Amino acid sequence: MARANAFYAQSGGVTSVINASACGVIETARNRKKQIGRVYAGKNGILGALKEELIDTNHETNKSIRSLRYTPSGAFGSCRHKLKTPEEDEREYARLLAVFKAHNIRYFFYNGGGDSQDTADKVAAYSLKNAYELACIGIPKTVDNDLPYTDCCPGFGSVAKYVAISTREASLDVASMCETSTKVFVLEVMGRHAGWIAASSALAQEKIEDAPHIILFPEVPFVESDFLKKVKRTVNAKGYCVIVVSEGVRKKNGSFLAESGTKDAFGHTQLGGVAPVVANMIGRKLGYKNHWAVADYLQRSARHIASAVDVEQAYRLGKAAVELAISGHSGVMPIIKRVSDTPYRWTIGHEKLSKVANVERYMPKSFISRDGYGITAKARRYLEPLIEGQDYPPYKNGMPQYAKLKNLLIEKKLPVKW
Amino acid sequence: MARANAFYAQSGGVTSVINASACGVIETARNRKKQIGRVYAGKNGILGALKEELIDTNHETNKSIRSLRYTPSGAFGSCRHKLKTPEEDEREYARLLAVFKAHNIRYFFYNGGGDSQDTADKVAAYSLKNAYELACIGIPKTVDNDLPYTDCCPGFGSVAKYVAISTREASLDVASMCETSTKVFVLEVMGRHAGWIAASSALAQEKIEDAPHIILFPEVPFVESDFLKKVKRTVNAKGYCVIVVSEGVRKKNGSFLAESGTKDAFGHTQLGGVAPVVANMIGRKLGYKNHWAVADYLQRSARHIASAVDVEQAYRLGKAAVELAISGHSGVMPIIKRVSDTPYRWTIGHEKLSKVANVERYMPKSFISRDGYGITAKARRYLEPLIEGQDYPPYKNGMPQYAKLKNLLIEKKLPVKW
Repeated sequence: MARANAFYAQSGGVTSVINASACGVIETARNRKKQIGRVYAGKNGILGALKEELIDTNHETNKSIRSLRYTPSGAFGSCRHKLKTPEEDEREYARLLAVFKAHNIRYFFYNGGGDSQDTADKVAAYSLKNAYELACIGIPKTVDNDLPYTDCCPGFGSVAKYVAISTREASLDVASMCETSTKVFVLEVMGRHAGWIAASSALAQEKIEDAPHIILFPEVPFVESDFLKKVKRTVNAKGYCVIVVSEGVRKKNGSFLAESGTKDAFGHTQLGGVAPVVANMIGRKLGYKNHWAVADYLQRSARHIASAVDVEQAYRLGKAAVELAISGHSGVMPIIKRVSDTPYRWTIGHEKLSKVANVERYMPKSFISRDGYGITAKARRYLEPLIEGQDYPPYKNGMPQYAKLKNLLIEKKLPVKW
Repeated sequence: MARANAFYAQSGGVTSVINASACGVIETARNRKKQIGRVYAGKNGILGALKEELIDTNHETNKSIRSLRYTPSGAFGSCRHKLKTPEEDEREYARLLAVFKAHNIRYFFYNGGGDSQDTADKVAAYSLKNAYELACIGIPKTVDNDLPYTDCCPGFGSVAKYVAISTREASLDVASMCETSTKVFVLEVMGRHAGWIAASSALAQEKIEDAPHIILFPEVPFVESDFLKKVKRTVNAKGYCVIVVSEGVRKKNGSFLAESGTKDAFGHTQLGGVAPVVANMIGRKLGYKNHWAVADYLQRSARHIASAVDVEQAYRLGKAAVELAISGHSGVMPIIKRVSDTPYRWTIGHEKLSKVANVERYMPKSFISRDGYGITAKARRYLEPLIEGQDYPPYKNGMPQYAKLKNLLIEKKLPVKW
């Protein structure tokens, strides 16, 4: 392929390491000047391409691009926008191709979860059909860790580390006060369909009987009576009980536990917040003093305590995406392949987007303990390496110094209306 | 005073640096063997003295004691137990003195907030009245930063740092997604009476217009209409709005905003959680997609991102307590005296417990901006130095390695019933 420009877009919920992938893409492209001209980034993801709002990353210094490696969230903006299939609505695909043509873009790097990999795959097929040479490469990203084929997803390891550390710290707090104060602590973490993040809280344990004593997974239907018995047993044995709950925990009838709970003063159902539902249940039924926390965005943006393994993998996947494109691949996604658990060794492979797209990977049954409230040794072997190492950002006056990009848009060449 | 033993107790809500004060006490005492024999720590604070459950810290290695410097929560256990006045109930005071006499304890170090300083003061007076030579020294501790005379309280700086960093990180997340997703993010932080912790979130700002855009203080009555206007203006101008709210925010009629909100499915008022109340209000009245987080214990146990200034001050106050006691003081508390803001310089002084006890220090009016939603330059000058420096704990396999003490109790000498 002749020298051409590249388009990079961030998609869906951001993570503390998605910018490390951006860093990998841009730094690698800068070293491949014979193949890649300018790297444009979509302002707010794929919307940037549709609106022809292209950020010229060439205006950023090497130092600024390097700082992406330790900056959380999406530095160019992300979005929740799923393209329909070309059969349903071809207009968006046609527009994408028009924008790519207008700016001589022949590399498309799409950094996101399952939906985005599906989109990248469709764009690949559409450009092929329209005889427009375009290398479409997906770059995995999701805190949910639910993409198939790749051993893990960039973003997950850092959330796992944050959740494990927060659980260990808060548990020490509760343990030291439980004689006269809080007996039950509930921490709500992300995970609507898969319990990977909740599972990682078990890394707070040094011995199996340590906190967290109960983990509630979306994969395991919630049975109140059984749960309350376990809480009571734990408080009797330990003096306190620490519970980590996935936002997506459901009852046997399939309804979200979070929805079963609270109404505001006007009688409207209060969405979100399964932790207060669980805490109130315990207070009401067992009478224990309790506290609860909801980590929400704090967990997926906590770059200050990112996993070094996660950062490195995010970077390397960005780098691999560029290398795959240059070597003639399209319609693929670089993936992490685990070589061994101890010592942890991994390498980069790649998989077809058509296989990755729209498949969600749940926690294997073999990862959840028999009683449904904990993880197995197998799960621990899988999870442990992913939180290894600290990758601290630089600080000034006690605060982390994150990237400040210029994010300058290039001049539009096409009509605004399309 | 002849060589005698010391009793150290942790009191009230724990912090990420109260053990650093314990470390300061024990390490200093170990270097003063001519004056201090053994340091006993109360199991679960003052309850340990009342129950004659005394932990002999001499069984801990120097390395273990050193590890207290980077271990959050109360390593010996803390409690919420306020002694009555000797006039109301002399029994507890008599018991304390009996336990102290039985174990030749003539140094009493009480590490806590306003209530605890009051207790230490009363114990000092009671022992004097009963002609029992006892050096009673308070050691300040409270994340609420509400003790008078001391420039700041150990524990606060680290919460402030955690809240400032979390606010900066979550704000980057919201900013990058706001085009198509969450427009308003609400973070709830501690502070029932004083807004020090909420105020510290403003350290996330590099420019005054940066997030957080709105801070809700307990000192400023909440007016819904004015608040909603400010949210709307912010979203219109910035595309998103980040709000940090103190748990103790009240309406004009004095009722807690947290209580005004939600009922569970059974119609019981749901206590705690002002963030969901604020978020639901915004969703209902303005229709913005929103997210909320409640940091709860995560904020006061987040030793992984403690302020180096805070850790050092906590340690030095523990050390100073021992030095004050040895030099013949009683009924006093070592305090932080600020010498200058920039560069930050501080020294240790001391104040009478009778002056410190039961006085709460609120945020000065001059620290809150005119509109009531932010902080002034004066507040910033005060807060900034307190979060300076990182004091990372050691890690193993990706997890912080916190102290594991033996916590062996000494043999009882007194009847269990008293």
